[in-house]
Amino acid sequence: MGSDSRPFAAGRPRPRALGFKLGTGEPGPRNAITDVEDVRVGHVTLYSGEVGGDGPIIRTGVTAVLPHGGNLFRDKVPAAAHVINGFGKAVGVTQIQELGVLETPIVLTNTLSVGVAFDGLVEQALRENGEICRSTGSVNPVVAECNDWLLNDIRGRHVRLEHVLAAIETAAEGDVAEGVVGAGTGMVCYGWKGGIGSASRVLAGDLGGNVVGALVLANFGRAEDLRIGSVPVGQVVTPPRDSNLGSTSGAEGSCVMIIATDAPASARQLGRVARRGQSGLARTGSFSEHGSGEYVFAFSTAATIPHWPEKEVRATGEAREDGPLMDALFEAAAEAVEEAIVNALFTAETVSGVDGFTAHALPTAVLEVRSR
Amino acid sequence: MGSDSRPFAAGRPRPRALGFKLGTGEPGPRNAITDVEDVRVGHVTLYSGEVGGDGPIIRTGVTAVLPHGGNLFRDKVPAAAHVINGFGKAVGVTQIQELGVLETPIVLTNTLSVGVAFDGLVEQALRENGEICRSTGSVNPVVAECNDWLLNDIRGRHVRLEHVLAAIETAAEGDVAEGVVGAGTGMVCYGWKGGIGSASRVLAGDLGGNVVGALVLANFGRAEDLRIGSVPVGQVVTPPRDSNLGSTSGAEGSCVMIIATDAPASARQLGRVARRGQSGLARTGSFSEHGSGEYVFAFSTAATIPHWPEKEVRATGEAREDGPLMDALFEAAAEAVEEAIVNALFTAETVSGVDGFTAHALPTAVLEVRSR
Amino acid sequence: MGSDSRPFAAGRPRPRALGFKLGTGEPGPRNAITDVEDVRVGHVTLYSGEVGGDGPIIRTGVTAVLPHGGNLFRDKVPAAAHVINGFGKAVGVTQIQELGVLETPIVLTNTLSVGVAFDGLVEQALRENGEICRSTGSVNPVVAECNDWLLNDIRGRHVRLEHVLAAIETAAEGDVAEGVVGAGTGMVCYGWKGGIGSASRVLAGDLGGNVVGALVLANFGRAEDLRIGSVPVGQVVTPPRDSNLGSTSGAEGSCVMIIATDAPASARQLGRVARRGQSGLARTGSFSEHGSGEYVFAFSTAATIPHWPEKEVRATGEAREDGPLMDALFEAAAEAVEEAIVNALFTAETVSGVDGFTAHALPTAVLEVRSR
Amino acid sequence: MGSDSRPFAAGRPRPRALGFKLGTGEPGPRNAITDVEDVRVGHVTLYSGEVGGDGPIIRTGVTAVLPHGGNLFRDKVPAAAHVINGFGKAVGVTQIQELGVLETPIVLTNTLSVGVAFDGLVEQALRENGEICRSTGSVNPVVAECNDWLLNDIRGRHVRLEHVLAAIETAAEGDVAEGVVGAGTGMVCYGWKGGIGSASRVLAGDLGGNVVGALVLANFGRAEDLRIGSVPVGQVVTPPRDSNLGSTSGAEGSCVMIIATDAPASARQLGRVARRGQSGLARTGSFSEHGSGEYVFAFSTAATIPHWPEKEVRATGEAREDGPLMDALFEAAAEAVEEAIVNALFTAETVSGVDGFTAHALPTAVLEVRSR
Repeated sequence: MGSDSRPFAAGRPRPRALGFKLGTGEPGPRNAITDVEDVRVGHVTLYSGEVGGDGPIIRTGVTAVLPHGGNLFRDKVPAAAHVINGFGKAVGVTQIQELGVLETPIVLTNTLSVGVAFDGLVEQALRENGEICRSTGSVNPVVAECNDWLLNDIRGRHVRLEHVLAAIETAAEGDVAEGVVGAGTGMVCYGWKGGIGSASRVLAGDLGGNVVGALVLANFGRAEDLRIGSVPVGQVVTPPRDSNLGSTSGAEGSCVMIIATDAPASARQLGRVARRGQSGLARTGSFSEHGSGEYVFAFSTAATIPHWPEKEVRATGEAREDGPLMDALFEAAAEAVEEAIVNALFTAETVSGVDGFTAHALPTAVLEVRSR
Repeated sequence: MGSDSRPFAAGRPRPRALGFKLGTGEPGPRNAITDVEDVRVGHVTLYSGEVGGDGPIIRTGVTAVLPHGGNLFRDKVPAAAHVINGFGKAVGVTQIQELGVLETPIVLTNTLSVGVAFDGLVEQALRENGEICRSTGSVNPVVAECNDWLLNDIRGRHVRLEHVLAAIETAAEGDVAEGVVGAGTGMVCYGWKGGIGSASRVLAGDLGGNVVGALVLANFGRAEDLRIGSVPVGQVVTPPRDSNLGSTSGAEGSCVMIIATDAPASARQLGRVARRGQSGLARTGSFSEHGSGEYVFAFSTAATIPHWPEKEVRATGEAREDGPLMDALFEAAAEAVEEAIVNALFTAETVSGVDGFTAHALPTAVLEVRSR
Repeated sequence: MGSDSRPFAAGRPRPRALGFKLGTGEPGPRNAITDVEDVRVGHVTLYSGEVGGDGPIIRTGVTAVLPHGGNLFRDKVPAAAHVINGFGKAVGVTQIQELGVLETPIVLTNTLSVGVAFDGLVEQALRENGEICRSTGSVNPVVAECNDWLLNDIRGRHVRLEHVLAAIETAAEGDVAEGVVGAGTGMVCYGWKGGIGSASRVLAGDLGGNVVGALVLANFGRAEDLRIGSVPVGQVVTPPRDSNLGSTSGAEGSCVMIIATDAPASARQLGRVARRGQSGLARTGSFSEHGSGEYVFAFSTAATIPHWPEKEVRATGEAREDGPLMDALFEAAAEAVEEAIVNALFTAETVSGVDGFTAHALPTAVLEVRSR
Repeated sequence: MGSDSRPFAAGRPRPRALGFKLGTGEPGPRNAITDVEDVRVGHVTLYSGEVGGDGPIIRTGVTAVLPHGGNLFRDKVPAAAHVINGFGKAVGVTQIQELGVLETPIVLTNTLSVGVAFDGLVEQALRENGEICRSTGSVNPVVAECNDWLLNDIRGRHVRLEHVLAAIETAAEGDVAEGVVGAGTGMVCYGWKGGIGSASRVLAGDLGGNVVGALVLANFGRAEDLRIGSVPVGQVVTPPRDSNLGSTSGAEGSCVMIIATDAPASARQLGRVARRGQSGLARTGSFSEHGSGEYVFAFSTAATIPHWPEKEVRATGEAREDGPLMDALFEAAAEAVEEAIVNALFTAETVSGVDGFTAHALPTAVLEVRSR
């Protein structure tokens, strides 16, 4: 699917593989959003064209996150959306805030491809649900984006409907590909190559062993601000600049955060969880620059809300508001977002793109030393 | 309690007593917020001093609305707060929006007495709950206000702690006193005497017979804008002006709306219900003037949320989002608010106050004619 | 452009042409949003296929509203977006709320065509602005929608990129076509044929003669709720039902409101103006049903905000917050929205569509009688 | 004023006095909110009663922040209020959000004294402005609070009206007392003694040399989470526990942040600045626990907005939205909040209070070592 000619085989090692821990909580077995049972992730990577070559330089893609593998329209999940910095073109936010449910996959892509991503989600929903706009109402596609203009020929709008559909259809449980993949293909983070990252936390057993997972599309930040754990990386190493994009401060960008949990939580409570995304983001050094559109989505897989319910009143589970579970969810959300961002930075390979700009892979040696 | 020397005995007749119906829904037996089982209303009326007399002219008071007669801190109710026009000094709004619960009575009073109302709610909560700020956290007092400056010596701040406590302690089920009573004593609405009004709707039997009640503190609007049902009252009758307050357009003021229901609804859903308050308000002619601070509170008595729960996860009932119950709640909320405002206007007697200003009772004859 | 085979020539008469006045304010010369100088409106109407015929029955279209005729990306206008009921798929809302500017036309279309409308706005912005995503950041397309499924083969997604571009390119000053036109082609309102409506108010001369205009896409409401001025129309006349869509209550739908003014107002103040959209809507009888997604956009043409400013600090005009201008803007916004909805109902012709469903033109005779 | 028997003379040294720098920006001469010209801070400290003694143990107070030394009601300043975690009893938030101005001092105190703080602000405003609620409308008192129950006999409500007035009246330019002072007297932060802290940043000269200052009331956080700069303090040192408050996790609490600047900014832009408070807070380790009510207020002194303006339209300055000034403001706000919190922790002395609980001063030696 697409044209994926990435000149590297796989992601580089994550920090934990190098012995570097972030935060105090325990990750799940995959340390990824897919540690939340039933959650699926799919990527379509569009990587083609060489610097100095003839065709367009394409460094973009699509990533889809699905709360479960069933029919999402018929079995919705409780959800929330939070806007940290509204400089972004996310779709579906206001309906999630009103109705508290997610009824499609969440699709991530580049800024100018939000329209086609919307179309893809509509196409997929109509295929699966003959009743939409016939015997029932409409569907709320959810799309978020970052601007990969530094590496990708974004004005060429190379994402097609079939790419969106493929990302959804190939979404799977299991390990999550990170770094230069899917929507993350052309993203830049803290001046280094960014992209997709994921992480998770398992809550202490006496909290029921619930899991919180995060997936981020990381495309933000100034090099000098990067902090990883207790290391002020941005004060130690600086990315080389192979570009003449003089007007670019590196502060343009965005960050999309998706938080999943299997803990019982109402939409209102998930809104509280989502607001902790900013805390995780800030721990990596960001102060949410003007140009960094930042949206957080949170959903729970603990229950589904049927589109065609049998009863007029449904029972829904809420965590005790002032019990230990809520704070555990908040902390896990912040930590998972923080680690997901760092995972994106560690795993992303160096990529060159339009105008000869190169986003370099973060050199992790400095961290390996410090973490000993 | 207080000094209540109102020179009239009781409220004038409500529109329904005169054969005038508003909206299409059916009211409950009392056509008041207390048709929602267990809801209680208490008033303390401060009415003393004569125009031209020696002492201060006091036309103010306190009204308390209680979701139930038990310990509200220990048995909270799901709740929402919506701001239509934030030009107002309501207290407790942001915590309701965050946590989705009401844990004290809602106290209404004049603008400059919000502090003492806060104190009264604290006092009452501390008396009942030795654990507050000892073995558990704090309590969230909820106060809203309107500015009765046109009739009342508001700068004298005549509301005392004991008035607030008395309004709470005397709150009772049953009929609700309306018009020139409690917090409504000095209020002006559409240029006429306003104050407290209440109304209710019983949902159709196949929706379970749930009840929606509203109580308003009506102190807003320009005379020419008043619409009652299908009658453009403000274009037909104009209040006489016995005042030299030349700078007063009559558009200063505010409206506080409290909506109660016994239908199952989450805090998010109650937020949706609260947002229909503006629809009810607008039907009476208001376009929410700049100076009209407008806050809506909504709560459900269908469930209580214990402060000291036995379980870490609680089951909570939500109405089916796209089922007939939600729309019925929305419609009932708008109609109950509309009728509560009109009830305030019909029942309020003429009151003279500071600076010789008189707020006249709405002459209802014109409506009686039109409604035939 | 498109395939416009509407079997009727032009809109029916508006209420004012029949001697029926709404509200108390004075409309501008066109009684339309284009009374605000420089504002432009463009429609592309897609009307083809006959009931019982072979091809798809297409009753849809695109409407574009432009604050001015220049380059909107380079000369943005202050703007606000308000969500009354977030059950809708509007795009661009969160960025307007964050940054307070509008930098593209506002495009209205059907629910499932939001993606292509986004694409059209991107296409138009990229054509005009070579710097987007090259030497400057991205662009924020603004799209809102209603669901025309009752009349239109909406699942066929017949709106194409060229339709969106044509609506923008043909947008013009002058009279605004209303009723069955553009995005309004397939819309249903209070059980009758709805669609596009527009209206305006000129503020009293001592307020500077500023103008407020509204354009609505009206596709909401239950027949029994319709109120026009002082006439409870919904209690007097009922639309015939030529359809077997048993599950359709008529309460599905939505309403998009666009409010323009040439008065000086900051984005925050425009937010206040936008919130009065609900007041105008409610005056026509709506209580904002669950299924009625309702979004309001407001912008001011009094100033433009350059994308490439010469100075780091710009001076911007704000109306005095508690002066007469603000209340005049609020009232005018509510009245213009109210009258725009009624104009849509008066001007729309009868349309038959999918499944043999017919949306009848509102019979206006009853109103002509009552208004005498 | 009050009864101030603190058994220690003055604040301990701040981190910068020990050679420890936070962030990358340059502080102003006082490294305090008062580096913003004309901003004033006043404290009244209530510290009396001994552990094991007879009388109540009072560890509380009042802190007032004034944007300027003139009549704030007549010369308001543009302002914003942001809610990170609404579990708190702040007053005045919704009116600031609606109208975008601050017209009283901001008063900080303990949770149960919000009512008296409201009263004090009313008293002060009425004294200065005979026209309030006579020939003009009301005034919007702004109060925020934290819960000092761990050290203070908060249920005794020892703050009196005169304390509030004294804090306002004695507010002065110049250095800001920190730590165990004013509203901070009984606060606990990250398990250590917290309280009042302040810091500032001067923007680079080519940005006009504008100043951003912060003042915080720090009463939040779990010991294990504390991060100071690049040092994970909470993983290195743990506060001794002299208390039997077994149910207290230390996560109860709150943080109030006040951000001042002399840069030109609209209320909307100040809202953006305020939202960066969470970023500063998170850098110190907090993930905004459930019980930590967190409110941010931001105001600009670059312009005043007259209550009695001469013109109906006023010119107001806005920073260029995508210019370097905005990002500089965001970064400075985050850094100033972060450093203000750390300043509170460094300067606060050990305090013992109710139930024999002791909040220990943070031992700073560990940091002095690490920062070399």
